[in-house]
Amino acid sequence: MRIARIAHPDGVAFVEMDADAGTAREIAEHPFGQPTFTGRTWPVADVRLLAPILPTKVVCVGKNYADHAKEMGGEAPADPVIFMKPSTSVIGPQAAIKLPRDAERVDYEGELAVVIGQPCRDVPAARAASVVLGYTIANDVTARDQQQHDGQWTRAKGHDTFCPLGPWIDTTIRPDDLALRTELDGEVKQDSRTSLLLHDIPKLIEWVTRVMTLLPGDVILTGTPAGVGPMKDGQTVAVSIEGLGTLTNPVQNR
Amino acid sequence: MRIARIAHPDGVAFVEMDADAGTAREIAEHPFGQPTFTGRTWPVADVRLLAPILPTKVVCVGKNYADHAKEMGGEAPADPVIFMKPSTSVIGPQAAIKLPRDAERVDYEGELAVVIGQPCRDVPAARAASVVLGYTIANDVTARDQQQHDGQWTRAKGHDTFCPLGPWIDTTIRPDDLALRTELDGEVKQDSRTSLLLHDIPKLIEWVTRVMTLLPGDVILTGTPAGVGPMKDGQTVAVSIEGLGTLTNPVQNR
Repeated sequence: MRIARIAHPDGVAFVEMDADAGTAREIAEHPFGQPTFTGRTWPVADVRLLAPILPTKVVCVGKNYADHAKEMGGEAPADPVIFMKPSTSVIGPQAAIKLPRDAERVDYEGELAVVIGQPCRDVPAARAASVVLGYTIANDVTARDQQQHDGQWTRAKGHDTFCPLGPWIDTTIRPDDLALRTELDGEVKQDSRTSLLLHDIPKLIEWVTRVMTLLPGDVILTGTPAGVGPMKDGQTVAVSIEGLGTLTNPVQNR
Repeated sequence: MRIARIAHPDGVAFVEMDADAGTAREIAEHPFGQPTFTGRTWPVADVRLLAPILPTKVVCVGKNYADHAKEMGGEAPADPVIFMKPSTSVIGPQAAIKLPRDAERVDYEGELAVVIGQPCRDVPAARAASVVLGYTIANDVTARDQQQHDGQWTRAKGHDTFCPLGPWIDTTIRPDDLALRTELDGEVKQDSRTSLLLHDIPKLIEWVTRVMTLLPGDVILTGTPAGVGPMKDGQTVAVSIEGLGTLTNPVQNR
């Protein structure tokens, strides 16, 4: 199932995207557990996709592809290094990434994102799949100069609009070996596979939930491969993951 | 006004703590704007204080007292360095701080906390006071070995129970020059004044809201003075701020 959040003529709803029928089927209440449906549908052409979930927290993993760790000038750490993006940084497909006035270089970082389906804590890797609702695409937008200036990454990665998510949550896809590609104005900048994650998704879920309770809708960003680079006002960035689709966002000065 | 969140015999509520009458007056709905009251009251002795707010995010400031920056072996940075604690780390007064099994040293860090009263972004220091609901006390509990190991501070400061807040939010206190004291089993460990903050509260609000939108109930932890040190299973930590009261938490092995 592909779960999206949409703006429709009368408001906002979680929906199942039915590609065959070309319709968005309204989910009653929330998409966790066994969703039920209201019976309302909209033609896909009439709805606007929003961020597919509003997470209480976005936990990210640094340097989780060897080639990206190398391009950042370091070794990949033996253990996952985690940081967070604020929930206020989340935007949906086609929403503009806004370049802060006080940042000199703002980079795209295309990533596979895990959406959590139930409250969980101390989850062993072996049963990590049971706490996952599904997978979506993320762009871990980063003000590179602020990241280097501060040491801590919260400011550099925490600006409003710096966490595009979408286009939907796929609840059935297997995440282990998917092609991931980031294009800037149509030029391929990142081209890798999720099989190259240094710490795989079950390990990440074990690591994060050893620290903190995750709640339904919380998101883990699994790290970006090599090829990160700057975006400018007027450009368009698109992160594609095999089987998941494409997350596209224009870039604008604030 | 002192706003608290309590567990009472029938549930949970925001209340105004009326010290003179010895009663907790139930607030209808939420404490933002001009709270209204339901008419229900409880004797203070019959209620249990919870964290006074459940923030969507907790933004913290590193090395914001010169003597603490020095004890950590560095200079204080020219600009505020921010990081975040997850909302799942928040606990209230008298709730146990749980020592993670995989942390070797877990420190108290007593701090003044600012509670935001309205959605805000790009707030100039000169009108920062207008977005503040009030002030409370925080303990920025930190797994010191994990902080040094990771470089990024999210894991070290993000464990469940690592953000005690309380006992209440004072909406009228002036925060500029208050005595701050942390005691471990009754022994004074930190003893400073909020007048020694390197970046004062209006500056912090300006800095943080230049990056991210703050929402009602979001919390800014303003930094800790010198004297940080480890806590052990069975000890009790108490952070007191002049005019605000005392935030007391027992410490237990997980």
